[in-house]
Amino acid sequence: MTTIRGVYAAALTPMKDDLSPDLPALVRHYKWLLASGCDGLAPLGTTGEANSFSVDERLAVIDALGASGIPMAKTIVGTGSCAIPDSVRLTKRVLEAGGRDVLVLPPFYYKKVSEDGLFASFAETIARVGDERLRLYVYQFPQMTGLDLSLELIERLIKAFPKTVVGIKDSSGNWANMEAMCKRFPGFEVFPGSERFLLAGLRAGGVGCISATTNLTAPMAAKVFAQWKGADADRLQAELTAVREVLEGFPAIAALKAVLARHSGHGTWRNIRPPLARLDEAQTRDLFAKLAATPFAPAKAA
Amino acid sequence: MTTIRGVYAAALTPMKDDLSPDLPALVRHYKWLLASGCDGLAPLGTTGEANSFSVDERLAVIDALGASGIPMAKTIVGTGSCAIPDSVRLTKRVLEAGGRDVLVLPPFYYKKVSEDGLFASFAETIARVGDERLRLYVYQFPQMTGLDLSLELIERLIKAFPKTVVGIKDSSGNWANMEAMCKRFPGFEVFPGSERFLLAGLRAGGVGCISATTNLTAPMAAKVFAQWKGADADRLQAELTAVREVLEGFPAIAALKAVLARHSGHGTWRNIRPPLARLDEAQTRDLFAKLAATPFAPAKAA
Repeated sequence: MTTIRGVYAAALTPMKDDLSPDLPALVRHYKWLLASGCDGLAPLGTTGEANSFSVDERLAVIDALGASGIPMAKTIVGTGSCAIPDSVRLTKRVLEAGGRDVLVLPPFYYKKVSEDGLFASFAETIARVGDERLRLYVYQFPQMTGLDLSLELIERLIKAFPKTVVGIKDSSGNWANMEAMCKRFPGFEVFPGSERFLLAGLRAGGVGCISATTNLTAPMAAKVFAQWKGADADRLQAELTAVREVLEGFPAIAALKAVLARHSGHGTWRNIRPPLARLDEAQTRDLFAKLAATPFAPAKAA
Repeated sequence: MTTIRGVYAAALTPMKDDLSPDLPALVRHYKWLLASGCDGLAPLGTTGEANSFSVDERLAVIDALGASGIPMAKTIVGTGSCAIPDSVRLTKRVLEAGGRDVLVLPPFYYKKVSEDGLFASFAETIARVGDERLRLYVYQFPQMTGLDLSLELIERLIKAFPKTVVGIKDSSGNWANMEAMCKRFPGFEVFPGSERFLLAGLRAGGVGCISATTNLTAPMAAKVFAQWKGADADRLQAELTAVREVLEGFPAIAALKAVLARHSGHGTWRNIRPPLARLDEAQTRDLFAKLAATPFAPAKAA
């Protein structure tokens, strides 16, 4: 029987004006997310701009998380990198910080690589970490990696590492693939990468969602999760999806940061690392106007 | 007037059985390439599996190169990473080693980023390096990065950093784009990313080529370069292209390593880091048979 995990935020990384991670602000944001309806956090993923940070910067984020008092059991920390030694180093640091759950991209520089090569990447990472506590979530995001992790590959990984490869975050947007994994791999924890699929995922046997936009929609997503077996579930999901759809019309990370800057009163929230760029003024006005026409109501600012 | 640079090899990285870079073998290989007809080297590019190595491993390669006695003026070292701080750290190390010329990918994790965001990535890298000696070659390889660097972006970079952004390696395979850059940006050093375009590139005003396959074809490419204004140029280019075409039918890096393993007698040459994988036996036989039907003749083994 799969444990249901609930609503996770792919947590944003606030930055100082020099674009280094603002660690105190980051811990405040993580705690605010947990207080706003999130069951857990996925720091240092795509939304956290992890691959725009050096390994040292990412290690500092893991250390800040470990020292924050946030239970590491509520976190799934992104550690996937192009280079296996970097993924290994980051993963070991999560284990040292008391965590077990990591979210691992395939090495994403090369394209058209073989399934054997992808399998070997995960196998080599697991072997080098060499720790039985490790619980690895595969991170499927073909729109960023250019690599599609097939059901056959997932099955092979589960069979080879049944206690280690425990789940997936599927950000492909391909619902048929998520549903197929829920059916085909009992006990394997399938997190859709968007709260758009929260209700459908739970009904299909998924465990929740890990989403960028739950940095804002956590209170609404929490309602869907709390009432997913109730009569109101579809209406609550529809409201949540309406907000998600607005956010999908903008560069996601910049849009989330623009809303948090307004909401918190801290303009530094708009800091973002190239190649990503802030929303311009016209985009920002458009976003705020469109959001105002939805049922969006953010949690109280921290 | 643009200085013609000649034939550069995007140098392979030999690895020990634990997949760490074999630094003595690497220096031997670099020297062998220069003795085999290469005018220069581009270590730590795509062919060098740079993004499969940690920053520390790449720093060790740069240090080994700097200590090798190879003139750094003959090198263009790959330093582009997903994360700007990593690109900066590697670039600074090249400068410390006496080099000036680096080959820089755009940060390649995020896709569909804006031209402003790409411009800002290069600008931020240049500002953080903060060294007037720097000569930056933009690395265009949309098949791997998922990012196409437009002529408008290149023009903007040249105008903003005329003494720093001095050239490009264009591995897109899009000849029209290479030709357009040769015409539109006088003095800008255009390196086609394949010796297939060596002769055409020189005739159009390019400066040579930087290619994976010149790890093997250096003697043949050197002949084209030496005689590019002569009556025999087209015939020599056709022979070179015939070899290149065979190699293009296989996963390039694994194929080059398989040939070098046979040629040198060192089986460790086949070591390759996941997600890349060795050629299997059938592929290897097929490759060797097809190469034997071309005019391919490698330089004497080191």
